[in-house]
This record gives sequence, structure tokens and C-alpha cells, in this order.
Amino acid sequence: MARRVAIIGTGHSKFGVRNDVNIAELAYESIRQAIDEAGIEPGEIDFAFVSNVGGWSSEPLPAVVALEYAGLTGVGTMRVEAACSSGSAAIKAGYDAIKSGEADIVLVLGVEKMNESPTPTVVEFIGRAGNYFWEFQNFGLTFPGYYALYATAYMAKYGATEEDLCKVAVKNHYYASLNPKAQFPRKITVEHCMQSRYIAWPLKLFDCSPITDGSAAVILASEEVAKKVTDSPVWIKAIGTASGTSNLSRRTDFTHLEAARKAAAMAYKKAGIDPENPVKYIDVAEVHDCFTIAEIMAYEDLGFAKPGEGYKLIREEQTYIGGLIPVNLSGGLKAKGHPLGATGISMAVDLSRQLLGRVEKGRQAPIKNGVALAHNIGGTGHYAYVTIYSLDKPREA
Amino acid sequence: MARRVAIIGTGHSKFGVRNDVNIAELAYESIRQAIDEAGIEPGEIDFAFVSNVGGWSSEPLPAVVALEYAGLTGVGTMRVEAACSSGSAAIKAGYDAIKSGEADIVLVLGVEKMNESPTPTVVEFIGRAGNYFWEFQNFGLTFPGYYALYATAYMAKYGATEEDLCKVAVKNHYYASLNPKAQFPRKITVEHCMQSRYIAWPLKLFDCSPITDGSAAVILASEEVAKKVTDSPVWIKAIGTASGTSNLSRRTDFTHLEAARKAAAMAYKKAGIDPENPVKYIDVAEVHDCFTIAEIMAYEDLGFAKPGEGYKLIREEQTYIGGLIPVNLSGGLKAKGHPLGATGISMAVDLSRQLLGRVEKGRQAPIKNGVALAHNIGGTGHYAYVTIYSLDKPREA
Repeated sequence: MARRVAIIGTGHSKFGVRNDVNIAELAYESIRQAIDEAGIEPGEIDFAFVSNVGGWSSEPLPAVVALEYAGLTGVGTMRVEAACSSGSAAIKAGYDAIKSGEADIVLVLGVEKMNESPTPTVVEFIGRAGNYFWEFQNFGLTFPGYYALYATAYMAKYGATEEDLCKVAVKNHYYASLNPKAQFPRKITVEHCMQSRYIAWPLKLFDCSPITDGSAAVILASEEVAKKVTDSPVWIKAIGTASGTSNLSRRTDFTHLEAARKAAAMAYKKAGIDPENPVKYIDVAEVHDCFTIAEIMAYEDLGFAKPGEGYKLIREEQTYIGGLIPVNLSGGLKAKGHPLGATGISMAVDLSRQLLGRVEKGRQAPIKNGVALAHNIGGTGHYAYVTIYSLDKPREA
Repeated sequence: MARRVAIIGTGHSKFGVRNDVNIAELAYESIRQAIDEAGIEPGEIDFAFVSNVGGWSSEPLPAVVALEYAGLTGVGTMRVEAACSSGSAAIKAGYDAIKSGEADIVLVLGVEKMNESPTPTVVEFIGRAGNYFWEFQNFGLTFPGYYALYATAYMAKYGATEEDLCKVAVKNHYYASLNPKAQFPRKITVEHCMQSRYIAWPLKLFDCSPITDGSAAVILASEEVAKKVTDSPVWIKAIGTASGTSNLSRRTDFTHLEAARKAAAMAYKKAGIDPENPVKYIDVAEVHDCFTIAEIMAYEDLGFAKPGEGYKLIREEQTYIGGLIPVNLSGGLKAKGHPLGATGISMAVDLSRQLLGRVEKGRQAPIKNGVALAHNIGGTGHYAYVTIYSLDKPREA
């Protein structure tokens, strides 16, 4: 009988430009909350996985720096990186450590201080997350450019418009306006978005997620520990993983992310979710909207919509609360912010709170089945992690 | 009943200055060997953990780059980093993935191309692996300086001499001379070492490990798979982990590494090895000799010698073959080379081949119990991993 793994505590910093704190202080904002919520002693933690992409901050190996500040020196630790899906990779590592019996209580921390470097430096570093030698150096592609290739291919094939892309931003800003942790907690309109300047056609400023400082943390525990310390564990039900080609020139299709499809299929299979109709099971999802086109492709790659019909979901407002499946009620990467290493853990924190009915009024999804999904992509589908979270006794649909 | 995890294939590149290959080609040298030795199809791999510290090479996120080149695109992946112990951290992550049942076959790859940047840049980056803000920026400490603090404290307290330190280098160069994969496969004398220039007193050039390009890989498998594909599995018997303070100014003692002691205690406990007399059980060890003083401290932290008596082991040649316990028969970090992310995996490869009697003549340890130990340190005891490997049917001592 495999050991089950639960989230027993969550922590989340304010996302934004956080020049008020150093990286250890920023990490501690989430660590402290997560430990408090879990009701454990720091000394009970068996291992700490730290998700951080780095390259832009002065502490390049922040795991021991953050642990020392938090009074956790001594505990075994490693840093995990899978580009923008680092957070979900660290959750997988924590899940494996507990499921294997190697640990009973694990801290999974994500932290990033991207604003320590000037924006062009950050954009350059992120651009190297694909294949530096062939595509970044030779063609000068950076991430808005990569996703613009997908956006143009998608629009050309399926007839989606720039307004459709903007509607994703409008939804995510709307929900961010209800999330005090969000970097941009304010509403925008389609007109705001359409009037914003082009970054990489057809993607405009408001189609792009921002450069963010932030942290998030979860405490994971074995079933035995979880049942002792909480009556509201959120289980990690299944994790699906995949990778894509390093070079985009080796991709055969620019209207979906193959790695995301593979990771979703693996997660659905492990979780016993019918891949033909996942929205029947899933109450709420956080998807990787680093650019608005990415959220539309995610709808399709996750099976929320058929290929070529994802843009209709947002056009018809089916991913708002009350629609087919509410998506990115945290504000998403787009408006909550995207501190790379913290993003996947931020998804876990918000979905955990969604499942337990603990988020702010107006952005709480109705929870029928007690099942939530996180879709976290690294690079342009270079890495994909799909994680299914569930309550202890989900009501059957 | 917990699932056991075996090494079923090993690969190791030539270590040195490898301007003849790019990072993906360098990685593939080890991946191909490991897959061939395991006798599996690449498509059978469930997940790939990639150990790389980076910062000095043009591909900052090499996991997908290496996997694409090796024809492994599609497999889930993450990069693991724990400074110079990254390789052992990646082995732990692979071990957890299989022990948990999340994977049956895992590739663990370590690769580093340190010579893509000029030496001062590399030295600066490594220097930041402690605490950048307080100690690197304010005091200008780099790694030779950090370990020199330990060397001076140790020599002052216990009476070890510079000649004792040099004797570690002489031993490790001697064994490197028998290892064709080593960066410096040639013998040196105590006089050579004593006459080399000071880097950070009392550490001279020949007390320091070099800047190295290299790769190493292992294929890990569940017991079920291992028993199908090989009659010579090498089991990962136990892994101990710990961390130390980020700031050295918070250490109370500079004659040992507390994290190494903790990790060793954990590993011995899990493996059922008497911590009072580990040399009774262990046939051969690879220890983290990034500087010669580090090997002497390792003898003590691992219980091979009492505190303050480690330098006598090397003075009396007790860590050569035929002595109390042979150490660093690969040549160690000192002479085999130290490509940071590959080092822990290189230890696993060499110990695996030692246990199976497959290393070059003259550096093969006698294998009585079928037990080997890897001691892999990140930073100056900021991270510690101690891993025990064992044969299927160890003869009892």
C-alpha cells in the first residue's frame, strides 16, 4: 500500500517588486505561515526542497541562506529547477521523498527575487531557458517571441483574435483584484489590453506576465502525520511530468504543447480521471498563463476544450466562476505575478485554500468533487508538470 | 516492504578541459555508456534528474538540451543543485522517485562545463555558494579561503602540518595516475606539492581541486527491473543528508564539518552500520577532497579516525589500498577532477565499479563486505550527503 502525501500547511508572500526584503526574509514570509498553519515544530521537518531559478539575484544558491534565516539549519536540502515549472518539480521531489518513506514531513519552498537585476538582464536569462546555442544566440529569440510563434500559428489555424487573448488577461486581472497577494490587484478592460504596446506581435504588454519577486511554501506530510495534526489535509493525488524538445525548430506543431498533453495524460491516468471529460471531476484549476495564448492552449492540452476551441471558452466566459471550469482564480501568472521558482508552489497554495473554502470572497470556486488541478510549464513546453490535488473525502460527482 | 533501488548502469566521461565538446555532447558520453551498460532501451526511462550547478556555461538550463541530444525528449525532468554535492542530491531524488513507486527506471546525469568561463569568473561563482551578502561581498572570501580557515584551525589545534596535507594530494594523484578518466593522471611528490605556490595559506596549488569539465551518469532501477536486466546490481543501501549554516561566522568549530557528521550518522543508522567502527563494514570510500584538508576532516567526520587523528591516517598511509580503509582510489576531486554537478555521480560510478571489481589494475580495492561509501559536500559543509552502496549478497565481515 503506497503512502499518501498531504499538504498540511501553506504560506504565500505578497507578490510584486519586493525591494523591502532580502531573499531570506522573502522566503521566511512563506515558511513561517506554512509552519504555523501546519501546527508543527520546525525541528520536525525532515528535508527542505527549495525551488529557485535564480541568475538574477545575488545569492545564487539560496537554499542554505533561506534555511539559516528561518532557523532550519541542519535539515537536508537541495535546490530544484525546471525553469518556470520549478515549483511543481520541487513538489514532486517532496512527494517522492514522503511517499518513499525517506521523510515524514517536508518543507517545499519557492522563492525568487527577479527585480535584483535590471529587466533586460532578466529577459535575457529567461530567454536562455530554451536552447541558447541554436535559438537564443543565433536568432535572438526571447520568451515573448517564443510564445508569439505559438500565438500566430494558433490564430492563423483557428481564427482566434487578439481580443480573445486579451479576454484571458481581463479575467485574470479581475480575479487578481480580489487577491491581496497579487502583484496587480486591479481590473483591466479589453480596451486597456488592446491599446497596450506590442512586445512581440500579436502579444502586447497586457498579454504578458510580469517580472515578480515572491515566495510560497507548503508543508507536506505522510498520511500518518497529516491525520495527527489536521482534520483538513489536501492530498497530492497524482503528478504527471513530461519534457519537450529544447529547440523549438524541432517542434512539428505550434498550436499546442506536446509536453503538457503528455503530463496531463499521465496525471489523469494516475488519478483515475477520464481524460475525455476532466471538467466533470475538476472543480478549479490554476494553469500556466505566462502569456495569454498559453492559457488558451492549456484549456486544450488539459482536455477542457477540444483542439482549436480553447479560445471559445474564454470568449464565452466559461472559465469564470459559474462557467464550465473556473481557471486562475488567483489572478494567474498574468496578474498575481510570476516569480519563477515560486509559481508552482503558489498554485499549490491557492488550490489548497480553494479546496478548503479559504480564499477571499468573490474568487472562491464552488467545490463539488474536492478536486483541483495545477498545470505548470517550464520554458515553452520544455518542461511540464500537471498535479492533481484532492480532499480527503471528495463527494462523488 | 520498501522498494529497493539499484544502480544497473554507469557512465563516465573523460574529465579535464573539454573544449572539444559542447555540454550536450559531454553529457551524452556518459548517458550512452550508462544506458548500454544497463541493457535497457532509452524509451524505458521514466524520469531524468540532471545535476548541474552552472552559471559558467552558456546553457543555463541544460536538462532539456542534454535530453534532446540524447534522444530522450518526452521524459519528465528536473535539474537538481546542492552546490558541489549536487550529484549526490540528484541520486537521492532518483532514489526517492523509484522507492516511492513513481518510477521504475531513472537516469541520473551530472554534467558541468566550467571552462566555458574564465577562471576568475568561475572562482567568483563558486565563492557565492556560501553566503554572498555577508561573507563573499563583505569579506571577499572565496572557496580556498573558506577551507583555509578550517586548515589553520585544524593545524593549530591538532598539530597537523603542511606536509600532511600534501600527503593527501600525493595519494590521490597516485591513484589518478591509474585512472584514464582523471584530469591529472600523473603522480606527484610531497616536494612538488610543498613547492607549489600558495593559494590561501596554508593551502597551496596542489592542495586544491581543479576546475573541470566532465559528466557522469547512472541508471537507477527498482528491484523488480534490476533483477531482470542484471546479475550484478549495486544497491543504494542508505542516504544521509544534512545542511550547515550559510554564514561561516555562525560556526562554532573549524576543525570539522557538522553537516558531514550528521549526514554520516543518518546514513550509518539507516544502513545498520556501527558508527563507532564503520571501517569494519566499509570496503572503500570516495570522500569530498575539494581541498586536502577536507579529506582529513572527512576521515574524522565519517568515523574512520577519532577527532584530531585524521591526519595520522594519511601520514601512516592507512587510506591507501592495504591500509585501514582505502579512500579516493579514483583520484578524488583533487586529481580526477571536480566538475561540480558531476562529482557525486562520478563517486557513485567509481564505487559501483569498485564493488563489482571492474576498475583498473592497481586501484582496485579488495571487496570483503561489498559495502562502499560516498561522502559529498556542498559549499564548506553547507550541504552534506553520505550514501552507502552495497552488493546484493555482501559477505559478512
